[in-house]
Amino acid sequence: MEVTSNKQVILRDYVTGFPKESDMQLVTAATTELKLPEGSNGVLVKNLYLSCDPYMRGRMTKREPGSYVGCFVPGSPITGYGVAKVLESGDPKFKEGDFVWGMTGWEEYSLITATQALFKIHDIDVPLSYYTGILGMPGITAYAGFHEVCSPKKGETVFVSAASGAVGQLVGQFAKLLGCCVVGSAGSKEKVDLLRNKFGFDEAFNYKEEPNLDAALKRYFPEGIDIYFENVGGKMLDAVLLNMRMNGRIAICGMISQYNLEQTEGVHNLMSLISKQVRMQGFVAFSYYHLYGKFLETVLPAIKEGKIIYVEDVVEGLESAPGALAGLFAGRNVGKQVVLVSRD
Amino acid sequence: MEVTSNKQVILRDYVTGFPKESDMQLVTAATTELKLPEGSNGVLVKNLYLSCDPYMRGRMTKREPGSYVGCFVPGSPITGYGVAKVLESGDPKFKEGDFVWGMTGWEEYSLITATQALFKIHDIDVPLSYYTGILGMPGITAYAGFHEVCSPKKGETVFVSAASGAVGQLVGQFAKLLGCCVVGSAGSKEKVDLLRNKFGFDEAFNYKEEPNLDAALKRYFPEGIDIYFENVGGKMLDAVLLNMRMNGRIAICGMISQYNLEQTEGVHNLMSLISKQVRMQGFVAFSYYHLYGKFLETVLPAIKEGKIIYVEDVVEGLESAPGALAGLFAGRNVGKQVVLVSRD
Repeated sequence: MEVTSNKQVILRDYVTGFPKESDMQLVTAATTELKLPEGSNGVLVKNLYLSCDPYMRGRMTKREPGSYVGCFVPGSPITGYGVAKVLESGDPKFKEGDFVWGMTGWEEYSLITATQALFKIHDIDVPLSYYTGILGMPGITAYAGFHEVCSPKKGETVFVSAASGAVGQLVGQFAKLLGCCVVGSAGSKEKVDLLRNKFGFDEAFNYKEEPNLDAALKRYFPEGIDIYFENVGGKMLDAVLLNMRMNGRIAICGMISQYNLEQTEGVHNLMSLISKQVRMQGFVAFSYYHLYGKFLETVLPAIKEGKIIYVEDVVEGLESAPGALAGLFAGRNVGKQVVLVSRD
Repeated sequence: MEVTSNKQVILRDYVTGFPKESDMQLVTAATTELKLPEGSNGVLVKNLYLSCDPYMRGRMTKREPGSYVGCFVPGSPITGYGVAKVLESGDPKFKEGDFVWGMTGWEEYSLITATQALFKIHDIDVPLSYYTGILGMPGITAYAGFHEVCSPKKGETVFVSAASGAVGQLVGQFAKLLGCCVVGSAGSKEKVDLLRNKFGFDEAFNYKEEPNLDAALKRYFPEGIDIYFENVGGKMLDAVLLNMRMNGRIAICGMISQYNLEQTEGVHNLMSLISKQVRMQGFVAFSYYHLYGKFLETVLPAIKEGKIIYVEDVVEGLESAPGALAGLFAGRNVGKQVVLVSRD
């Protein structure tokens, strides 16, 4: 197959503060021929769904080398997780027509050379877009973060912040399936309703309407919190620290409230970790990819049986991608933010 | 034995800011007879050594009930760890003449009813005062905090703050015995010399002479820190967070730099926990007292063979106790701060 033009979303320049739609730009790269170079071990793919994830904010900032993910290159297409169809393959693990998920480019067509970071999609009996979320990186993040990092036990109290997001909605449902008591926080009435009515959280609250987060947590957790799944950082973390129970665990998945600040907020209540003997642990999904097979065996049937529900916020077209990514940091998405590039 | 007067150190009132010697007062309680009440299961002891420990600062502040140790009662004697001789026992586990260590009062004689928190001293072939330190609570703190909480491995890099203190000097030596590379920080040249020359730390520095703690840590740990044994908190923790290695561990034993502040300092670099997948865990020695037997089997021979050295700062007389305890928070002690009340 010969491709002679390729729409792309490029990052104009490194970003400070909240990312704006105008920090990105849709361009059309003219190319005489987009095909797999002779002898290449890579794959040429057509991108179907692109994933907007909070960690991408870090890649928009110029940083020292050595960070666990490199920064974007201004003037070049943004890269991120996505679902794609293989058009041409130089890697024997993939063949034309295969669906894959993994790191790809924000463009119509990508030439992926790092094929070791691609997963072949075997089950297409679920929405393909799920492989950007529940069946992709956010899914493993929720699964490993909750089951491996939090060491949860039935009956424990669990608090999830950014609870309607790509990861939070799953953590809450995993916790409910285990028999935990789960409370979530989110930033709008619509999201709080989702938590209560769709995802089965025991309780949920809108953090923007709580003048005192400590008091809110004491209301929902009169006996304290056994497990906190941390997605936001800052003031919420400080309030949680005052409400942890003895031997509690905090899995730090992300701190989205801090990503756009010039200077991160100071966290003042770390001394609570001592008396309550709390374990606080940062993690990245990447370290748990070896559990992906086991994860699929658990989650795929649960999706098909309706035991786990996943809510996506899908925008159509590459031209909508800059707005969708910027919106993620303003909390505009309801559920997992996905960009549909092409249905097939 | 009949005792008719009892010198005591009382806390005058709850303390704000740095404790001063004048926050405490030496009084002589007149008593017609200090003896074990009829039918008591407690023990009457003569106190020999009293321990000045950083955690005592928290007990000088009026706090909500539910804290893991209660506050002191203004007008009543301070309580704390100590070594004592049993004068009279209503508990079959102890008899007259036994030496014990555990929670006692800051006074010449104490009637201890909570005998379950007393340990009988079997080996008196070492200085009795050691049972306030290396062979007592600080010893178990260092042992459990390092071996159980930090999951150390030979060859790893270890950083210890407040490293010449009761706990820090032991952590450094335990780490050296395991084959780790150990750097310590302390607050004076004398202490730094101790770390280097007496305790066998690979390197040591005076944090007060480092305008940039991050730069200091980068100098001593060009490859980063695998294990941080946290005794101080605040700015040091913030600098350490920037220098942790992948899968690093931080055992939070205490945060002495924060205990006397009206408002604790904010810690800004917690996001580093995520990308480096660091585990940070608070702990208290009390949860590891079941390891005391095993601990003694390891540490007693090491002391006798000179493989572990312990430095104490001993002041004589109950009247010196208020100054010694206040001095602890100003860093005036060099080594474990002990008050000798009576030699036998």
